[in-house]
Amino acid sequence: MRELNLLQHIYAHNDQLPGLVQIPPGDDMGAIQLGDQTLLLAVDQVIDGIHVDLKTTSLQRIGRKAVTRNLSDVAAMAAVPLATLATATLPRTFGQDRAEALFDAMRQTAQQYQCPLVGGDMAIGDGPLHLTVTILAKPDGIEPVLRSGSNIGDVICVTGQLGRSLPTGHHLDFLPRLQAARTLASDPRTRPHAMIDLSDGLGCDLKHLCDASNLSAILFENQLPYRDHANWTEAVGNGEDYELCFTMDPQSVPKEAAGVRISVIGQMIEVKQTPTVSLQRLDGSRVCLDNRGWEHQDQNHV
Amino acid sequence: MRELNLLQHIYAHNDQLPGLVQIPPGDDMGAIQLGDQTLLLAVDQVIDGIHVDLKTTSLQRIGRKAVTRNLSDVAAMAAVPLATLATATLPRTFGQDRAEALFDAMRQTAQQYQCPLVGGDMAIGDGPLHLTVTILAKPDGIEPVLRSGSNIGDVICVTGQLGRSLPTGHHLDFLPRLQAARTLASDPRTRPHAMIDLSDGLGCDLKHLCDASNLSAILFENQLPYRDHANWTEAVGNGEDYELCFTMDPQSVPKEAAGVRISVIGQMIEVKQTPTVSLQRLDGSRVCLDNRGWEHQDQNHV
Repeated sequence: MRELNLLQHIYAHNDQLPGLVQIPPGDDMGAIQLGDQTLLLAVDQVIDGIHVDLKTTSLQRIGRKAVTRNLSDVAAMAAVPLATLATATLPRTFGQDRAEALFDAMRQTAQQYQCPLVGGDMAIGDGPLHLTVTILAKPDGIEPVLRSGSNIGDVICVTGQLGRSLPTGHHLDFLPRLQAARTLASDPRTRPHAMIDLSDGLGCDLKHLCDASNLSAILFENQLPYRDHANWTEAVGNGEDYELCFTMDPQSVPKEAAGVRISVIGQMIEVKQTPTVSLQRLDGSRVCLDNRGWEHQDQNHV
Repeated sequence: MRELNLLQHIYAHNDQLPGLVQIPPGDDMGAIQLGDQTLLLAVDQVIDGIHVDLKTTSLQRIGRKAVTRNLSDVAAMAAVPLATLATATLPRTFGQDRAEALFDAMRQTAQQYQCPLVGGDMAIGDGPLHLTVTILAKPDGIEPVLRSGSNIGDVICVTGQLGRSLPTGHHLDFLPRLQAARTLASDPRTRPHAMIDLSDGLGCDLKHLCDASNLSAILFENQLPYRDHANWTEAVGNGEDYELCFTMDPQSVPKEAAGVRISVIGQMIEVKQTPTVSLQRLDGSRVCLDNRGWEHQDQNHV
């Protein structure tokens, strides 16, 4: 099954959505209008064997990741977390103590980021451990940054480092880039024109930004910030970086935002036929990266 | 594992929640304050083999139920649906066509109830089909009705009929009692003092209302509205009725609300030691119903 086809099928109905829907499915978060307030919404799944491994990972880190993954989506909109809801389907043999430890980790992580757990649902099932976290956020004075809006000539930037997130444990311990996003987006000079968080892999996620902005992207191998001596295929394809990828005016790129290093890794360019993402290798050759990442394996956002 | 213990563990932290949380975990929906708006939130899971059976049930009805179960929670607060988010973990062999049919059913049901699908997440997994639906709702001029607030001497009422929801297919085709709840709650004479929706079974769900209101309940076998010649054990224990159970002033019980029949089935009484739910049989004997239902089997709300 091609997840992308299913997503296209869902997006095809976005034009039927009522006026209260300000950001339809297809961005890092959706948004609705509630009175004079804008409310941002997203939901993510964490499944044992796909996103985490119960055999090698503490319940504390699993519960934490279930919440922080969603907070990375909040960062991608430059928004402020508001509240969370969680579901768990626990294997029959899971046990009371471990269930409590898992919920405590989700509750405490949510509380730490000022987005309290306000509800949820629990079931016992025959499949693997399955968690979902729904997160609500608010713009709080900063217009949400979308995946669309990139301009030709914009530089492409990322926070932090890329690749080898799984072997290094980064995918469990990462800090969602909430403050960096707010700092960048609140200053008109540094406000990203388009932004996405890197969960499925740079090749794949940047392609979404290109599609939404109807532009192509060229990346430079020698400019990628490599984590743990990752090679370029790992940096563009591993996924689970939970960093921000954004495009902005080349004149005003800061070296860091809220203490997080920012690297310029490429440029937005005109579309030839359809939006593509390419990488210029050290030897000058170019590789097409379209959808390099998790897209067709396991998981995607609606 | 006793789900109830885990829920108590979670509720024990409710007093640490910040002021923006207006209704903490433990009611049909949680609520937060957003500007001058109140936002109600709930999430529910639908798992193949527990809540639905893919072998015998159309994808259309499964997708519908995933949404209408949550709408029943909205009805229990007398609120108005606003928006939905959905996740799906699909078995590897599920296929594109069936995935589209399932999402179409969720999307169309959500749209039909004016709560558009604004986001979600999809994964492919090794377990059974797993869906979650998060629902947002607004009070829209009617103060939410809680599980607490019942008075001694209140009559206990239910909408519709009870029992045999699975064999009759009611659990798939039920109509969430949204309009009945609004009609009752908008009139000060008929406004329920406390309300819950019946998903886990009357014995179990009414116990939650009793606990929240710190009162006991006595039901009368001869007054229960039996679906499909259910017996009393089926009516109080089958679950999946998706009807409303509420308590109100005995003087002003209407025969119906928004075309839905209302039956008086019992009375709220003083607590002896802890809140209990009892049934008075036809022969005058009394049976304790505490937690009769699904509670310890499969599923519960946080």
